[in-house]
Amino acid sequence: MQLGMIGLGRMGRDMVRRLMDKGHQCVVHDSRAQAVDELRGQGATGAASLQEFVAALETPRAIWLMVPAAVVDGVLQSLLPLLAAGDIVIDGGNSYYRDDIRRAEELRKQGLHYVDAGTSGGVFGYERGYCMMVGGEPETVQRLAPIFAALAPGDAAVAPSPGREGHATTAEQGYLHCGPHGAGHFVKMVHNGIEYGMMAAYAEGFNILRHANAGKQARQDDAETTPLRDPQFYQYDFDLPEIAEVWRRGSVISSWLLDLTARALDEDPVLERYSGNVSDSGEGRWTVMAAIDTAVPAPVLSSALYERFSSRHMGDFAGKVLSAMRQQFGGHVERKS
Amino acid sequence: MQLGMIGLGRMGRDMVRRLMDKGHQCVVHDSRAQAVDELRGQGATGAASLQEFVAALETPRAIWLMVPAAVVDGVLQSLLPLLAAGDIVIDGGNSYYRDDIRRAEELRKQGLHYVDAGTSGGVFGYERGYCMMVGGEPETVQRLAPIFAALAPGDAAVAPSPGREGHATTAEQGYLHCGPHGAGHFVKMVHNGIEYGMMAAYAEGFNILRHANAGKQARQDDAETTPLRDPQFYQYDFDLPEIAEVWRRGSVISSWLLDLTARALDEDPVLERYSGNVSDSGEGRWTVMAAIDTAVPAPVLSSALYERFSSRHMGDFAGKVLSAMRQQFGGHVERKS
Amino acid sequence: MQLGMIGLGRMGRDMVRRLMDKGHQCVVHDSRAQAVDELRGQGATGAASLQEFVAALETPRAIWLMVPAAVVDGVLQSLLPLLAAGDIVIDGGNSYYRDDIRRAEELRKQGLHYVDAGTSGGVFGYERGYCMMVGGEPETVQRLAPIFAALAPGDAAVAPSPGREGHATTAEQGYLHCGPHGAGHFVKMVHNGIEYGMMAAYAEGFNILRHANAGKQARQDDAETTPLRDPQFYQYDFDLPEIAEVWRRGSVISSWLLDLTARALDEDPVLERYSGNVSDSGEGRWTVMAAIDTAVPAPVLSSALYERFSSRHMGDFAGKVLSAMRQQFGGHVERKS
Amino acid sequence: MQLGMIGLGRMGRDMVRRLMDKGHQCVVHDSRAQAVDELRGQGATGAASLQEFVAALETPRAIWLMVPAAVVDGVLQSLLPLLAAGDIVIDGGNSYYRDDIRRAEELRKQGLHYVDAGTSGGVFGYERGYCMMVGGEPETVQRLAPIFAALAPGDAAVAPSPGREGHATTAEQGYLHCGPHGAGHFVKMVHNGIEYGMMAAYAEGFNILRHANAGKQARQDDAETTPLRDPQFYQYDFDLPEIAEVWRRGSVISSWLLDLTARALDEDPVLERYSGNVSDSGEGRWTVMAAIDTAVPAPVLSSALYERFSSRHMGDFAGKVLSAMRQQFGGHVERKS
Repeated sequence: MQLGMIGLGRMGRDMVRRLMDKGHQCVVHDSRAQAVDELRGQGATGAASLQEFVAALETPRAIWLMVPAAVVDGVLQSLLPLLAAGDIVIDGGNSYYRDDIRRAEELRKQGLHYVDAGTSGGVFGYERGYCMMVGGEPETVQRLAPIFAALAPGDAAVAPSPGREGHATTAEQGYLHCGPHGAGHFVKMVHNGIEYGMMAAYAEGFNILRHANAGKQARQDDAETTPLRDPQFYQYDFDLPEIAEVWRRGSVISSWLLDLTARALDEDPVLERYSGNVSDSGEGRWTVMAAIDTAVPAPVLSSALYERFSSRHMGDFAGKVLSAMRQQFGGHVERKS
Repeated sequence: MQLGMIGLGRMGRDMVRRLMDKGHQCVVHDSRAQAVDELRGQGATGAASLQEFVAALETPRAIWLMVPAAVVDGVLQSLLPLLAAGDIVIDGGNSYYRDDIRRAEELRKQGLHYVDAGTSGGVFGYERGYCMMVGGEPETVQRLAPIFAALAPGDAAVAPSPGREGHATTAEQGYLHCGPHGAGHFVKMVHNGIEYGMMAAYAEGFNILRHANAGKQARQDDAETTPLRDPQFYQYDFDLPEIAEVWRRGSVISSWLLDLTARALDEDPVLERYSGNVSDSGEGRWTVMAAIDTAVPAPVLSSALYERFSSRHMGDFAGKVLSAMRQQFGGHVERKS
Repeated sequence: MQLGMIGLGRMGRDMVRRLMDKGHQCVVHDSRAQAVDELRGQGATGAASLQEFVAALETPRAIWLMVPAAVVDGVLQSLLPLLAAGDIVIDGGNSYYRDDIRRAEELRKQGLHYVDAGTSGGVFGYERGYCMMVGGEPETVQRLAPIFAALAPGDAAVAPSPGREGHATTAEQGYLHCGPHGAGHFVKMVHNGIEYGMMAAYAEGFNILRHANAGKQARQDDAETTPLRDPQFYQYDFDLPEIAEVWRRGSVISSWLLDLTARALDEDPVLERYSGNVSDSGEGRWTVMAAIDTAVPAPVLSSALYERFSSRHMGDFAGKVLSAMRQQFGGHVERKS
Repeated sequence: MQLGMIGLGRMGRDMVRRLMDKGHQCVVHDSRAQAVDELRGQGATGAASLQEFVAALETPRAIWLMVPAAVVDGVLQSLLPLLAAGDIVIDGGNSYYRDDIRRAEELRKQGLHYVDAGTSGGVFGYERGYCMMVGGEPETVQRLAPIFAALAPGDAAVAPSPGREGHATTAEQGYLHCGPHGAGHFVKMVHNGIEYGMMAAYAEGFNILRHANAGKQARQDDAETTPLRDPQFYQYDFDLPEIAEVWRRGSVISSWLLDLTARALDEDPVLERYSGNVSDSGEGRWTVMAAIDTAVPAPVLSSALYERFSSRHMGDFAGKVLSAMRQQFGGHVERKS
C-alpha cells in the first residue's frame, strides 16, 4: 500500500523505513531537504514541497503526519487545500485528543477523513515495531490496516495473554482501533501518564538506594536539622547498575523501561552526564486534567508530573515562601544549600 | 547441594520443586503435615518436627526460611538451639532489613551464619525463576551459589544489557550479593516500593480510561457539585482488556505487571470479583520510611501506599472532618453517596 | 448606593442584609418567591420577575449575581436584553475565571460592564464581613467601592500588617481590585485551592491522632498484613475536641478553620453524623489545572483534591485493578474489609 | 513558683522572661555565659554550671529543658546524677515522643518524674503566650499548673468555642494534659505535621499566583516542551503582598500563618532574600511515619515534607534517572535549565 509521510524526524524516518522493509511504498516530505534525501536514497519517493508530495500520491490518498503537536494545525492549513474528497489524514504525533475531535470535524466538512494514531515505541520502534492506539471512523481505520499491521510488532512478537484463544483481535498484533475521533490519542495520553508514573517509581527507588549510605555522612546537631536517628541502618553502598540488571530477571518489576534504565546505569553509573532537569511533553499534563475533570483520583500520576516541574525549579518560589514563614514565626535563618 | 526448607506455602513449596528439578536435595518442614507429605511425594525428605528436620541435614547445614515475616523470630527461637557452629540460616521472606542486622548479630554469637535473601517472583517463580537480592558475608553467600543459581532464572532467560560484555556477574543469572547483612532485604524492600508505584500507575491509568465516558452521565447543577464543563470530551467507552493487550506490544509501558493485568482484565473485564480493598505487606511502608529517614522525596511511592490505605477506609475519619468543616463555614449539607 | 441582587440563597440573602444594615438600598430577586418576601420584610425592594427587578433599579444599574456557577450563563441570557448601556453586572459566585473573560467581552459589545467578585466568608459573612477579590475595569470597580466597603469586614476588623503604614489600600478593609476581568475569580480560585489544602492538613492530622491507639487493637500475623511493629508506641486515646481547642491559643496552626473544627468536634467528638463523602465545587480543580498549565508543582493542593474524590469512591476501580494484579502475581486473595 | 530553665536560646530565654513577668522565680543555665548574664540582668538567678544550677533550686525541683532534641540525652546524662527523688524534669523541646517514653522510664527508676511539653509559639510566644501539649503523670502535670498557666496565652486571649460553657478545661487557657508520657510530644508532632501542610498550601497557592502571567512569556514549539495552549488565560500580574493582606479579612483561609506571610511579602514582595532551601526539623517526618505505622493516609502532610526535601536538591538523582530513561527510549536530549 502507498503512504505519504510528512515529518521525517526520529520517529517519522524510522516508520518509513519499517514500512518500506515490509514492502509498502512511501512518499516523504520534510522541510529539511537532507531528511528527504536520506530516505530517497533508501527507496522512498522524496517530495521537496507539499504540492509535489500531494501530486505523488494516488487517490484516495493516505497521509501520515509525524510532526510536533504544536505545528500540526499549521501543516494542515497548508495541506488541506491540496487534498481531494476521500483522502485520509493520520496524525501520528502527540496531539491533544480534543484537537483531534475539532480537526476531524473540519476535515469532514471537506469530505476528508481524519485518523488519530497515538504511537509508542521511541527510537527502538524500527526494529521492535510500534504500538498504535487509533481513533476514527471504523471503515477508514480498516482501510489503513495494512499500514498499521506493518508498523506494529506483529503477533509473533509477544504471545497473547492465556485465555484469549478464540477471540483474536488486532491488539495481538500491536494496534487497536480504540473508538471514535480522539480515542486513539486519549488512550495514548493515558499511556504516557502511566509511563510518567512508572518512570518516577523507578527513579524514586533508585534515589533511595543511592542514599542508603546516608549514615556514613557526618551530621550536625542543631535545631534546624533533624539528625538521622539510626545511622547504623544506612551504611549501604549499593551498586545501582547491578541492581537494575538483576531486577530484569524474574522480578515483579521487570519491564522494558527497566531494561533501558539498566543500560543507562551500566553506561554511566552515577549518571553524571545528566543535570536532572526533566522535560514533559503534554500527555502527562492532559492525563491529570482528564482525571480531575472526571473526579478520578490520580495522585501517583500527578506526583510524577510535579517531580518533573520541580526538577526544572518551578517550585522555587514556593520554597521561598516557606523559608519566609519560618523566618517570621521561628526566627529560623535559611540554611544555604 | 542439600538445602533445608522451612515453610511450604506458595513460595516455599515451589522453590523446593525448582531446586529438586535442578538436581538439588531438599529436606522440608512445615507445621502443616499435608504440605510436607505433598513434597515428600515429589522426592523431598519430609520432616515432621524441627528436630527431625535438623537431624536430616548434613553439617554445615543450609536452612532456608520461607515463612511470614512476623513469625521468623519465633521459628528462630525454636531452631537455633538445635543448630551447630558453621550452619547457615537464610531468611527468604519479607523481613524488615533491620531485623536482619539484629538476627545476624545474634547468630554470629552462636557461630552461625545469617543470610537475607529478598525473593521476587510470586506464583510464577517455579517456571520463570526467582529474582534474589542477597545480603550477608561474602564467603557464606558464595557457599550458597549453587542454590541461588538454581532458583534464579539463569542467564539464558534474559539477554544482558548491551555493553555488559566483559563484566558478567551473577546479576545476569538473576541473583545478586548486594552487600552486608540486611542489604538483600533493603534492596528487596525498595523493589517492592517500586512495585507499588508501578502498580498504582497502571491502576490510576485504567481508572481514568474507565471514566472516559463520564460525559454520558446526567449531572445535576447545584452549588455543591461542579458540573463537567465539557461533557462532549468524555464520551468514550473503552475496552480495557483490549487496551491492556495492545500495550503489551512495542509500547514504552510494556512490563510483566502489564502482562498480568491484561490477563486479569481478559478474565473479568470489570473486575467484579474484587471489592478493591488492597492489602499492603510492609515493604512499601518501610521504603517510604527509609526515604524519609534519608530526606529523599518519594511522593509517587508514598501516594501508591496511601491509595492502599484509603482503599481500606482508613481515610474515612479525615473525610468526616472535612465534611464537618464544610458544614460549619458554608452550611454545606453532606451529600450521601 | 443602590444594588440589585439576584440569588437569595445563604450568601445572597445575608449580603443584602449586611448592605441594608450599612444604609444601602437593595432590590432583590430570586425564583423562590418566599426568599424575596423574607427580604422585603426586612426593607428590601422585592421583585417577582427580572423585568420588575430591572425596572426597580436606577440607571446606570449595579446588579450582583449570587447564583450557582452553573446557572450564571442562563441568568445572563434572560437579563442582558433588559439592560441598558452603562449598567454593571457583578458575578459574586464561584465562576471559572475563563467564563468571566468571555462574559466581559460579550457584555462589552452591548455597552455593559462586567465585574467578577470572588467572595469568601460563608455563613458567617453577615456578621464577620466578606473578603472580596475583584476583577474588572478600574473605573467600574471604583464605582462599586461603597458596596465592597460595606460588604467587607472593614479596617477595624483586623490590624494591618506591621510595616504597611503609609501605603494603606482597600486590602486593609477586606477587598481588593486584583486585575482585569477574571482576576478576581482567579485569586478566589487559588484561595479555595489553598483552603482545600489547609482543610486536608487538619483532617489528616486529626485522623492520625484518632488512630494513635492502634497498638491496643489485636492484629493477626499473616503474609497479607504487616503487623504493627511497635504497638507500645500507639497506646494513646486522644481527646480530639480538647486538642482542637488548645491549638486555638498561641499555636502556629491557629486559624479560623481550626476555630470551626474545634466547634464541630465539641458538638460531635467522633463526627458520627457525617459519612465522610466530601464534595468539591470547582475551584480546587481549576487551581490544580492552572498549576499544571503553568508547570507549577502543586502536590499538596492536588492531594487534598484527590482525597475528596476518593472519599466519594471514585478510586474504587483502581483498587480493583491492584487487587487483581496481586491475585495474578502472588495468588493473594483479597481480604474483605 | 520556682522553675529551673536549661537552654536559653530564642525560646528558652523568652519563656523565662514571660514567667518572671508573671511573678515566677527562675534559675537559668546555658553553656553560653552571655545568655545567662542577660537573664540575670533581668532578675533571674543565673547558674554557671549544672551543679550551681541544681543547688540553686528548691526541692522537689522543677527543671525545664529547652534545648535541641539531639542534645537532650546528653544534658540528661550530666543532670540526672545531680537530682534527688521527687524532682521533675520537663522536656519542652521537639523531642521524638518515643524518646519521652524511654526517658520517663529511666527517670522513674531513679524516683524522678518526667514530663514532655510540646511547645508552640515561636518568637512571638513572649507576648502572645505559648500553646503547650503535655504528657506525663496526672499529679506531676498538676503540680506544674502554675507554670503552664503563666506560659500559656490565658483564657482572655481567645474566646472559647461556643457550646463549651459548663465544661471549661485548661485547653481554654492554652495548655492541655494530653495523656501519659509521650502524649504531649505526639500531639505536638502532629501539630507540626499539620503546620507543614498548611504552610505548603499557602506556598503552592502563592506560587501559582506568581506564575499567572506565564502567557506573557514567549515559548518555543518543539517536541520536548508542551506549549501553553491558552496563553490568553495567563496574563495576570498579581500583587502578592496585597492579596495576602486581603485574605486576612473575612476569608476562610485567614490564619496566623497567613498574617506572617503577609508581613513577609510586604517586606520583600519577591522574597529575593531567600534561596528557597527549606529545612525540616523532625516532627514532620515523624508525623508521616506515625501515619504509615497506623495505615492512615496522609498524602498532604507527606507532600509538604517532600517539597522541603526537593527544595534541598535531594530529588536530583531521581531527575537524572528520568532524563537517562528519556534519552534511552526517545533519544530526548536533556534541556539545560
